[in-house]
Amino acid sequence: MRLPEKTVERLSVYRRLLRLGRYSDDACVYSHELAAMVSGTAAQVRRDLMAAGVGGHSKRGYRVGDLMRELGAVLDARDGTGVVLVGVGDLGRAILRFVKGCGARLRIVAALDSDPAKVGQLVHGYRCESVSDLEVLVGVGGVDVAIITTPAAAAQEVCDRLVRAGVRGVVNFSPTPIRVPDGVWVERVDLITVLEKVACLVRQAAAEAVEVGA
Amino acid sequence: MRLPEKTVERLSVYRRLLRLGRYSDDACVYSHELAAMVSGTAAQVRRDLMAAGVGGHSKRGYRVGDLMRELGAVLDARDGTGVVLVGVGDLGRAILRFVKGCGARLRIVAALDSDPAKVGQLVHGYRCESVSDLEVLVGVGGVDVAIITTPAAAAQEVCDRLVRAGVRGVVNFSPTPIRVPDGVWVERVDLITVLEKVACLVRQAAAEAVEVGA
Repeated sequence: MRLPEKTVERLSVYRRLLRLGRYSDDACVYSHELAAMVSGTAAQVRRDLMAAGVGGHSKRGYRVGDLMRELGAVLDARDGTGVVLVGVGDLGRAILRFVKGCGARLRIVAALDSDPAKVGQLVHGYRCESVSDLEVLVGVGGVDVAIITTPAAAAQEVCDRLVRAGVRGVVNFSPTPIRVPDGVWVERVDLITVLEKVACLVRQAAAEAVEVGA
Repeated sequence: MRLPEKTVERLSVYRRLLRLGRYSDDACVYSHELAAMVSGTAAQVRRDLMAAGVGGHSKRGYRVGDLMRELGAVLDARDGTGVVLVGVGDLGRAILRFVKGCGARLRIVAALDSDPAKVGQLVHGYRCESVSDLEVLVGVGGVDVAIITTPAAAAQEVCDRLVRAGVRGVVNFSPTPIRVPDGVWVERVDLITVLEKVACLVRQAAAEAVEVGA
């Protein structure tokens, strides 16, 4: 059974909010409570949890311990998902630290960079390896997912090598789109565009308000 | 004229790719060339550029100098958009540095933190200010957009204060959704969910491949 992308996203958010809420395992939450936390509807929450195979009682709600266990069965690989990060600049370092501390079941196998001065350094507890060892590290480490935090010029080549080495999911933080073959999932996090978009939409809305007021 | 969100996103990406391509102002690009860079269609590119008021010739394409100027007129505020960042942890620092170097016309007015040990420190050239001065700094600095990189527990209160102080756009990197009144634009960048989602979708696809093969 393959869950749709948006469902998986919401399941991840529900789980995080339950963690942040520090509920006891025996506590119960209702779909409308989860819905309020995400500004969604209770029906949506129930559909998502049903799709994930989580059972609940309309009167007693969901027991948090069961919910967390069943969400984990959907979201987590048994031994953690093997991850490499390529590009140990500022953003790469911050994301490495973030991944380490975020509580997701991700197993960082290697942090790679092309700069010989960085290779061998410890970065948040991980030894920085040379990008020339990419294929070996991906192969040995059972890596499924790669995080690309390289400059734009390097991103496509790095991605091609990762995919040839067997990586099937890529989170691309580089400032350029990358192309992948069918069967590989790319999620792009384009920070410049997010910022430019919000700035532009806010300005458009303000200009419109002036026009309406005029 | 208010451009749709997705159009603004694509315009931001086109501009970045033109910058990365280091074209001369007199160079010409065709819609199909831009389309190839974003794995889109030429018709989509032409619609987007037309919506942004950019004229082109079907035979000669778009002159890059004109294109950049007209994209700038849509995407950029004349004096740069005033931005504050709240939460000067690792992620906040990395994003501060990123914003400083990304070439977008964003004017960082202040970086704020609640930790007295951080206040007064220089972070990538910006002095870290106390979050207790948020209202003053937002008011004086002409801030339209805020970047929230606080822990989850602080995000909603910080956001409420930002909105009361006049901020109309928020990029939320904290690990929790936040609520805003109508008229305020929130863009959420949920790094944990992006990573968990890619890991989960890759695993689902692999499991499906095994089933099909069995």
